[in-house]
Amino acid sequence: MVSSNTIDGSGALKKGALNGIRVVDVSRALAGPFTTMLMGDLGADVIKLEMPGTGDESRYWGPPFATYMSSNRNKRSAEVDLHTDEGRNICLDLIRNADVLVENFRPGTMRRFKLDYETVAKIKPDLIYCSISAYGQTGPMSHRPGIDLMVQAVSGLMSQTGEPDGRAMKAGGPIADIVGGFSAVVSIMASLMERRETGRGRYIDIAMLDALMMVLNQQIVTYTATGKPYARVGNAHPLMAPYESFPASDREFVMAVTNEKAWKAFISIPEFAHLDEVPEFKAQVDRNINRVKMLEEIYRVFRAKPAEYWLAELDKRGIPSEPILTLPEVVSHPHIKERGSLMEIEYPPGSGTRVVIPGMPWRDVAAPRIQRDPPGLGQHTREVLEELYGPGGIKAAG
Amino acid sequence: MVSSNTIDGSGALKKGALNGIRVVDVSRALAGPFTTMLMGDLGADVIKLEMPGTGDESRYWGPPFATYMSSNRNKRSAEVDLHTDEGRNICLDLIRNADVLVENFRPGTMRRFKLDYETVAKIKPDLIYCSISAYGQTGPMSHRPGIDLMVQAVSGLMSQTGEPDGRAMKAGGPIADIVGGFSAVVSIMASLMERRETGRGRYIDIAMLDALMMVLNQQIVTYTATGKPYARVGNAHPLMAPYESFPASDREFVMAVTNEKAWKAFISIPEFAHLDEVPEFKAQVDRNINRVKMLEEIYRVFRAKPAEYWLAELDKRGIPSEPILTLPEVVSHPHIKERGSLMEIEYPPGSGTRVVIPGMPWRDVAAPRIQRDPPGLGQHTREVLEELYGPGGIKAAG
Repeated sequence: MVSSNTIDGSGALKKGALNGIRVVDVSRALAGPFTTMLMGDLGADVIKLEMPGTGDESRYWGPPFATYMSSNRNKRSAEVDLHTDEGRNICLDLIRNADVLVENFRPGTMRRFKLDYETVAKIKPDLIYCSISAYGQTGPMSHRPGIDLMVQAVSGLMSQTGEPDGRAMKAGGPIADIVGGFSAVVSIMASLMERRETGRGRYIDIAMLDALMMVLNQQIVTYTATGKPYARVGNAHPLMAPYESFPASDREFVMAVTNEKAWKAFISIPEFAHLDEVPEFKAQVDRNINRVKMLEEIYRVFRAKPAEYWLAELDKRGIPSEPILTLPEVVSHPHIKERGSLMEIEYPPGSGTRVVIPGMPWRDVAAPRIQRDPPGLGQHTREVLEELYGPGGIKAAG
Repeated sequence: MVSSNTIDGSGALKKGALNGIRVVDVSRALAGPFTTMLMGDLGADVIKLEMPGTGDESRYWGPPFATYMSSNRNKRSAEVDLHTDEGRNICLDLIRNADVLVENFRPGTMRRFKLDYETVAKIKPDLIYCSISAYGQTGPMSHRPGIDLMVQAVSGLMSQTGEPDGRAMKAGGPIADIVGGFSAVVSIMASLMERRETGRGRYIDIAMLDALMMVLNQQIVTYTATGKPYARVGNAHPLMAPYESFPASDREFVMAVTNEKAWKAFISIPEFAHLDEVPEFKAQVDRNINRVKMLEEIYRVFRAKPAEYWLAELDKRGIPSEPILTLPEVVSHPHIKERGSLMEIEYPPGSGTRVVIPGMPWRDVAAPRIQRDPPGLGQHTREVLEELYGPGGIKAAG
């Protein structure tokens, strides 16, 4: 299975843990492409099949086409029209030579293409076939359109995000897609490991909703154990205070006073010494009860000086605190630079335009890192078809 | 490696893809336990080592102890004191018989226990050793305390969440822990697959910060490609409108009008027919420019009737929309019930008290589902030590 992999001087795989695994990727937009990107990062050969002439719809979201660019490194693109017999046959031939198929169409679409699991498993019984959708392949909501905002609303996450007296808010990134994608990768890798024992393939049904609910593990257990709905707490901690975000004179920062010792350290900051004399703030239980009054006073003091001053005072005392960084600050942060957490890709292909992108979320795993920039539409159609049919064996679809 | 696994009638593994893999888990609180729980869900034998008498600190966060309950199914608990020579030797003996070690102490702590990778790899060169921390093992921030709120602040996610004119908000769940945990599982499984080829172990360094930045992929690419910071947009879409959350007379819901066809469908709702005559709302580009005025009018109309009415009208016209559900609504939702997305655990052990918890975020993967409820502190100390040393070979630590 890992035939073309070799071992380098340190005893590690040169091309990554998934080298030798071929993925036929008919997914578009986000959760599917994110899944196959992680597999490509780990060395899999990901062949992205796209509609001739148009391709993945996310190619058009922009400029600067950030969704496409950030989800499609380490793949090859081939234009194949699944609506035609010729395209469908190419897809089936690719599947015969592949290990994994990933799709994230609306449930039922792959059946219309006659590429549903039952059909495909007949010609390739050891295929791992992963369907990703907003709400899963079964259940009364399965047919509904899958947009990250909708899944955040239905999961309960929005109801838990935002100011207690404000609107329910979405998290500021497509976390249903991302957590759904991670769930897909884990389950595909588990199925590849299983296949080594059994020789059998699998059908995997990933619902972004199921994955996103794991972010609400604690709230769901709290509600079902107590029968009491978990109120939206904004940036605060439901059991501890002060533990949230605060305004300095110039910017916001977060701080967590997690126990009595930390509270003593906090009121050793000269500007907060007067809080020691307030009986309503003596014990943590008092501070929770009198939270509003306490926070008003803390806000008032913090607002008088810049964040840098407060963060230094808190740091000295071992109280966890950090500034709330903007994206420009994140991208230029010395820590993130030193860790090499960000990588560069070129896009469009051949343009010489290099863009910074978050890299793989692990260090020192056998991974080829970025071997390929996000491909142009159909950039590898000829290469993929010649691998399949030999030189001149078939004209490129589209 | 999968010696005790057997194949069931359908050709699948009975005990899960990771059956035969043993995980020594010295992690506490959230990202680490979440990682090992997913591995236990897939059939790994996870042995959770806990400080005698006290154990994982999350056992005390409550009642109802939701963090502990939702992160520790499918594990065994053994009380072992890593501060003593006896405990350290038990840990090393377990490692000799294990495949994976997971820890999420502050960087440097495992070295103080003389259980750092360099030391452990000498006695077990094929161990996969995974360290999870807030900011990673390297870089100027590596020593800083790792709380989900802090990582959300530093990642840039908070600056992207919340009302444009309000405070930066955290997402309403510990998503740095969850995405960090998923990253850890993927990298451990990749390293297990690699080990089959090379026979070698690996050291993996997971930073919750690196993982969480992937949620900001699109914003980071947009910023680095254009040089323009990506403004916080609340619940809105940066390029399309109306595409956000709206208030009905009784509750909030989300709606996405994604193109001209959808806009035509939207203004075919009788209450919105008058918008067709407003020149400022004609094309998508106009609606973006005149967004505030348009949204004010849409809000005014939506506020007059209940969400159920609007959702039915939108549904009829194929416009994506969903109510923003509360947790009680999520837990009792017919779709989630039909999919079996929630499971039950008993906790405390033997109490007969059953609590609902989100299950595994995949369907039909070879997984043993919930085989074990979250263990009591030291519930399996004797069992684990007898497996290691034989009956009566050593007295249970603690």
